[in-house]
Amino acid sequence: SLQKIIKKTHAADLSLVFRELSKNNRLKMFNLMTDPEQKGVLLSELEESIFLELIAQLDLKVIVEIFENMAADDVVELLGYLEEELADAILEKMKNEDSLEVEHLMSYGEDTAGSIMVPDFIAIKENMGASDVISALQNDYADVEMPFYIYVVDEYGKLVGVCSLRQLVVVHPQKPLKEFMATDIVSVNTYTDREDVAEIVARYDYLAVPVVDDDNRLVGIVTVDDVIDIISEEATVDILKMAGVGEDYIETQTIFRGTRIRLPWLFTSFLGGLAAFFIIGGFEASLEKYAYLAAFIPVIMGMGGNIGTQSSTIVVRGIATGRINTRDLWSVVSKELAIGIILGLVYGLFIGVVAKIRFFSEPLSLQLSISVCLAVISSMSVAALVGSLVPMLFEKVNIDPAVATGPFVTTSVDIVSVYCYFMIATLLLGI
Amino acid sequence: SLQKIIKKTHAADLSLVFRELSKNNRLKMFNLMTDPEQKGVLLSELEESIFLELIAQLDLKVIVEIFENMAADDVVELLGYLEEELADAILEKMKNEDSLEVEHLMSYGEDTAGSIMVPDFIAIKENMGASDVISALQNDYADVEMPFYIYVVDEYGKLVGVCSLRQLVVVHPQKPLKEFMATDIVSVNTYTDREDVAEIVARYDYLAVPVVDDDNRLVGIVTVDDVIDIISEEATVDILKMAGVGEDYIETQTIFRGTRIRLPWLFTSFLGGLAAFFIIGGFEASLEKYAYLAAFIPVIMGMGGNIGTQSSTIVVRGIATGRINTRDLWSVVSKELAIGIILGLVYGLFIGVVAKIRFFSEPLSLQLSISVCLAVISSMSVAALVGSLVPMLFEKVNIDPAVATGPFVTTSVDIVSVYCYFMIATLLLGI
Ligand SMILES: [Mg+2]
Ligand SMILES: [Mg+2]
Ligand SMILES: [Mg+2]
Ligand SMILES: [Mg+2]
Ligand SMILES: [Mg+2]
Ligand SMILES: [Mg+2]
Ligand SMILES: [Mg+2]
Ligand SMILES: [Mg+2]
Ligand SMILES: [Mg+2]
Ligand SMILES: [Mg+2]
Ligand SMILES: [Mg+2]
Ligand SMILES: [Mg+2]
Ligand SMILES: [Mg+2]
Repeated sequence: SLQKIIKKTHAADLSLVFRELSKNNRLKMFNLMTDPEQKGVLLSELEESIFLELIAQLDLKVIVEIFENMAADDVVELLGYLEEELADAILEKMKNEDSLEVEHLMSYGEDTAGSIMVPDFIAIKENMGASDVISALQNDYADVEMPFYIYVVDEYGKLVGVCSLRQLVVVHPQKPLKEFMATDIVSVNTYTDREDVAEIVARYDYLAVPVVDDDNRLVGIVTVDDVIDIISEEATVDILKMAGVGEDYIETQTIFRGTRIRLPWLFTSFLGGLAAFFIIGGFEASLEKYAYLAAFIPVIMGMGGNIGTQSSTIVVRGIATGRINTRDLWSVVSKELAIGIILGLVYGLFIGVVAKIRFFSEPLSLQLSISVCLAVISSMSVAALVGSLVPMLFEKVNIDPAVATGPFVTTSVDIVSVYCYFMIATLLLGI
Repeated sequence: SLQKIIKKTHAADLSLVFRELSKNNRLKMFNLMTDPEQKGVLLSELEESIFLELIAQLDLKVIVEIFENMAADDVVELLGYLEEELADAILEKMKNEDSLEVEHLMSYGEDTAGSIMVPDFIAIKENMGASDVISALQNDYADVEMPFYIYVVDEYGKLVGVCSLRQLVVVHPQKPLKEFMATDIVSVNTYTDREDVAEIVARYDYLAVPVVDDDNRLVGIVTVDDVIDIISEEATVDILKMAGVGEDYIETQTIFRGTRIRLPWLFTSFLGGLAAFFIIGGFEASLEKYAYLAAFIPVIMGMGGNIGTQSSTIVVRGIATGRINTRDLWSVVSKELAIGIILGLVYGLFIGVVAKIRFFSEPLSLQLSISVCLAVISSMSVAALVGSLVPMLFEKVNIDPAVATGPFVTTSVDIVSVYCYFMIATLLLGI
């Protein structure tokens, strides 16, 4: 029967099916599920909007039962999507031991190691012998999600070492942990940013990293499956910010919400366009004399805009992946500037030649083509400079460099390009 | 001494130090390292350009010794960076068992599961009893990198089940594997694309996924640490492609190489600029009559360009993260189009009002402001449509949608915007 198939299907796969169903069929399918743990995994895997729609159809009792059977870090994530009142009501109804764990995690700041850690780790006193550790694993730690690292603590609960399952079976059964554990442990603090946690797990190829408090007491671990989600989500957030969409944008938004989120981001571009409008308006005399000046506006703006996007994207992604360090600000920016100048020369010449050929018979066609060439060079150089410098400076003063790029860089480059172009042309054409 | 410090430092950290050193100091530091395994991890962690520079300074004998102590998948990756002659020379000098393993992986296509799998898995016959499995683990599989899954194979080596370390210690010692193994195994084929492999590991929160050949024989596993690298690299590649930089671009390029890689990507934008130039040239009469028409070119192009970038980025990232499916083409595209029309109306009205106010005293100022308003609406609607449709169609016909966006979309939107604007203005102003 359908119920049997659902029982046998991994909840991650059910979430894919869920997406294709109508609201009513989602509820029907959900009610066919019997295992609260499977329901929990499904809820974690759903997109925010589908999750909210489903939750609104469920009894509080059902929700509470599911949340009691979920890992605390996943409960925190889901509660974050709910209205505060509902979240409080759920926490109140949950068994004390479960809700305390969740509230503990929620006390840590958003996006910190504390808020994404799980308390299911194995911590064993340093004096215990190898064979005693093995029986402790079988008896006391049967529920631990990832039993791959055995953390070793001293009498105060402070993290002093780590040992693997493998080592336990190889050494003499009576040997105490402290004599064979590894002591060069990499740990993070409860308030370490989740991106830095992910970077550490990726760098050392760990399956989990221990989280300690200010007294070096072991309080949780962050597991590799959550690190994968962090890396993927952070990349998405950066991409969306760079495109000027706002980090909260996801495709499942309604048209109304989608419009509301994107509207303000286009405002930068609108203001920039107005600025360019008034700048060009200031050169109306030049335009009335040489109407064809207008024909070069798109190519000058386009070339500047594109190389600016190249530079800012390279820098933002380089910072995110750790390949670019703000200490190297001047070497990065000067390299980008050099590339901007060279590419500006190449394309400036191309476009200058086109201008010369097109207006061969006109008077001042040489001056015109030189103006256009110089305008492309300055537009592309400025774009490469601004595109690399702005994100580097933002990162230095702790503003997210991804926000700095996109609309911000392209808009300022547009304004500068247009201004330089008309200034140069007006001068050279002697208007 | 320095040598001791280096010995105790994780090679992943050494790679960070390495980046800051001069070429000579890098070699000096490398020669202070004594453990070929540590040297191997360092080489894997270096950026391509630094790796190539260092390799050029090393003796073939030294390289061979390091490669013999590395995991086969990492050797394949590094050999890929080298000139074919050098790679062949290294393979020839390597111990037969090591080079065969590497050549085996190299026989699989680039970016497939086969080329990134490792042969260090635990495969045990289904009839073996639990206690025998435990002693086999201790004796035969002491070197296995990730001993967390025990794969169960039948007499032909075909994958039939999987079991965890934990289960082994819980069941009766004589119980054969086939009686308690899990049989609902998710596996990938040797030619599965590495992005799909990563998606599976992320979806089910696995630590490794088994790779089978066409006869379902277990031939390797892909481990979670490599999946993290894949996800991060694929996001970088997509970001760079969308920015029109070319996927091979990394920040450590020289100015010359950087220029060469970026030059062709700007060519689209150059051609688009030329097209816009000739289009505007075709309306020279209109411009000569109403010079201030030119002043609105930047805002019309800018608004279209930005909403086009929003739409294409949302779609490309949605496809990459699996949230958008090409089956939903029309619902996605029509939603984007609706948002484009609404935002076009909002900003079109804004800009129309500005135009009306600015040219209040001029004749035909109403016609002008209506032209500008309609131009913004059409530019933003077309941009949202093209920006969402093109990547969806590209994905459908198996062209990377990330390439489709960036320069391609913005350039075509630029051309359409400029054309619509001048057409509308010429009509309404009755030129
Ligand atoms: Mg989740
Ligand atoms: Mg953050
Ligand atoms: Mg790694
Ligand atoms: Mg978790
Ligand atoms: Mg998870
Ligand atoms: Mg970030
Ligand atoms: Mg690598
Ligand atoms: Mg691929
Ligand atoms: Mg996952
Ligand atoms: Mg590997
Ligand atoms: Mg690795
Ligand atoms: Mg891709
Ligand atoms: Mg643009």
